[in-house]
Amino acid sequence: MWERSLVLSAPGKVILHGEHAVVHGKVALAVALDLRTFLRLRPCGEGRVCVRLPGVGVVRSWDTPRLQALRRGFAGERWEEEIAAHLDTLKEFAGIAAGASAPESLATLAFLYMCLAISAKYGDVPSVDILVWSELPTGAGLGSSAAYAVCLAAALLTACGAISCPLKEGESTARWTEEELTLINSWAFQGERVIHGNPSGVDNAVGTWGGALRYQSGEITPLKRVPMLRILLTNTKVPRSTKVLVAGVKEKILKFPAIMNPVLDSIDAISQECQSVLEAMPANPSPEYYPVLEELFDINQHHLNVIGVGHPSLDRLCRVTASHGLHSKLTGAGGGGCGITLLRPDTSPLAVEAAKQDLCACGFECWETTIGAPGVTLHHSSSLNAEVLHALSES
Amino acid sequence: MWERSLVLSAPGKVILHGEHAVVHGKVALAVALDLRTFLRLRPCGEGRVCVRLPGVGVVRSWDTPRLQALRRGFAGERWEEEIAAHLDTLKEFAGIAAGASAPESLATLAFLYMCLAISAKYGDVPSVDILVWSELPTGAGLGSSAAYAVCLAAALLTACGAISCPLKEGESTARWTEEELTLINSWAFQGERVIHGNPSGVDNAVGTWGGALRYQSGEITPLKRVPMLRILLTNTKVPRSTKVLVAGVKEKILKFPAIMNPVLDSIDAISQECQSVLEAMPANPSPEYYPVLEELFDINQHHLNVIGVGHPSLDRLCRVTASHGLHSKLTGAGGGGCGITLLRPDTSPLAVEAAKQDLCACGFECWETTIGAPGVTLHHSSSLNAEVLHALSES
Repeated sequence: MWERSLVLSAPGKVILHGEHAVVHGKVALAVALDLRTFLRLRPCGEGRVCVRLPGVGVVRSWDTPRLQALRRGFAGERWEEEIAAHLDTLKEFAGIAAGASAPESLATLAFLYMCLAISAKYGDVPSVDILVWSELPTGAGLGSSAAYAVCLAAALLTACGAISCPLKEGESTARWTEEELTLINSWAFQGERVIHGNPSGVDNAVGTWGGALRYQSGEITPLKRVPMLRILLTNTKVPRSTKVLVAGVKEKILKFPAIMNPVLDSIDAISQECQSVLEAMPANPSPEYYPVLEELFDINQHHLNVIGVGHPSLDRLCRVTASHGLHSKLTGAGGGGCGITLLRPDTSPLAVEAAKQDLCACGFECWETTIGAPGVTLHHSSSLNAEVLHALSES
Repeated sequence: MWERSLVLSAPGKVILHGEHAVVHGKVALAVALDLRTFLRLRPCGEGRVCVRLPGVGVVRSWDTPRLQALRRGFAGERWEEEIAAHLDTLKEFAGIAAGASAPESLATLAFLYMCLAISAKYGDVPSVDILVWSELPTGAGLGSSAAYAVCLAAALLTACGAISCPLKEGESTARWTEEELTLINSWAFQGERVIHGNPSGVDNAVGTWGGALRYQSGEITPLKRVPMLRILLTNTKVPRSTKVLVAGVKEKILKFPAIMNPVLDSIDAISQECQSVLEAMPANPSPEYYPVLEELFDINQHHLNVIGVGHPSLDRLCRVTASHGLHSKLTGAGGGGCGITLLRPDTSPLAVEAAKQDLCACGFECWETTIGAPGVTLHHSSSLNAEVLHALSES
């Protein structure tokens, strides 16, 4: 029987450099975004498992015996290999239509899948009430589904005893061991597979380990030590299709290979230069690194325009921030979506506020946050701000 | 004794692609701009040579005997090799201060140098009155000094009988033979040396042959057949230093070689792709080529921003023309200066007028003209428009 209340969180992610080029075998740098998804786990002692996702309007609960019966119907050992087959059964069980792709359907399905698969492997998930609330907008390429899956994996693995609960009396936050994080990450990846079909694994790795990581040709390598950098994250709210943008880039490369391939090489070199700078910064926190990071932003933004994933809204974002002496680039798929603006340690709150106001006047949504944030973390309630406490106190 | 009146003209030039990259061994495409410099040659029968350059406020004339005496003071055969030594003497003769670099001083000096050197080699230049007037703004990177030198070379070589006067009765325009053009070009290059010290020879080659040419590592190759393309040429009137811009590009390449060298490779590929398109167009004048030319403009403009030669005025120029569905890039040194906007054959005069008005509202100066224009040309007065006739009729 589970008796503790837990709060844990996982960060979102942004691509710092290498979006699109990564599809063509180049390096991408992904960094943890300190807009976080929070999960509160409470005992509920009634032989039920309950999940509430106010952000997508989900409130569901199931009797534990029904879940156990469902689980026994599956072949015990091959959960990871047989997601597709299991999902059809789970959809029927949860009353979700076969082709449903709405966030609430996928989130419910991922929860059920992870809950049953983790129970099958490590013993029953006890009767708990899970509430998830996020600072991240969904569908904006900020890794909100991965942050959700990382939180679920950490919470469910902790609740069924597969990993420890490292938060000690008197501590405000705690993290798991490297081995436990590896387990959390592997289950979060399974959750991502339920939601995305064929995820790269980058988003859940960033959500689990935080900081920054390098991704190339399927290989994910965490960067050793990276600084926390202040940023503005701006959502232009211009909708776009990642699939269409990726196809457009491919078409341009096929049309003008001699012109486009060097651009991908240049983007690759930008990612590598940026990695060097980030790894040098913690040991030598000199202000001289910031103009280099800013210049890399500017250059890559031009390159992203060249490969055809810019958008007038992103041009405007760059122009508005430039008028405040700040440097921006799109992040992720482009064609609208989000942009990231670097702030220096000494950028004044007034200057930031002025830039935010101008961005909001364009109809954009804007957050002041940091990148290089910690990965999945357990929290004592004293470490949570009022907004998070309020969101998690709703029942 | 010279008895005919002649009018001849030479075009300006714009760099279509490859500015700056050409400094680093890449291909540049230069094209003749149909903003022309006109020269009127008239007999004056008084034992005098007279030159009038109303654009730079020069009215000078010299007694033929004094010029002959000056010429005899020089070693006869080595004019080309000994420009520097001769120039000091010529400056003293013309009353120009030793370090003078104003356009009127350099134009006067180039005239005197070419007049004496051509006389020394091909016999006396007869008593003539030369008036030069240009549609080209000076100092805007549009090859105005080369157009001037080409006109002078053609006029002086014709007047002293070194080349023919190919304009026949009843013809409105005429051009010289290939051999004569080669001679004109070589003397125009000498004039350019007087004005610029160490010119590449591209501008005078474009002024002489017209059309388009490819330039790489000192080698100039005329393109076979190229179409005349409608353009807007816009002068942002933002002053800049080519020297400082070239040095800035070099610095960026040294700072980020792995990032910048691929950008130069991509620009090189753009020039080559553009050359292929231009050479394919005359045989197959399909409208499908225009979107390609436009896309190459857009990509190169981004690259020029990456290598650091953009300017907010040029961004604005591109934005204004984009709002009319037109594609632009900077041309030449960048950092202000001129931009070029491609017009399609079917772009309506109304659309062009609207774009021009918006550009003028930015404080820019704007010409609707063509590129791929003919090189140095003899004109019957019937082939000249009213503005040119008016300018040349002033005495």
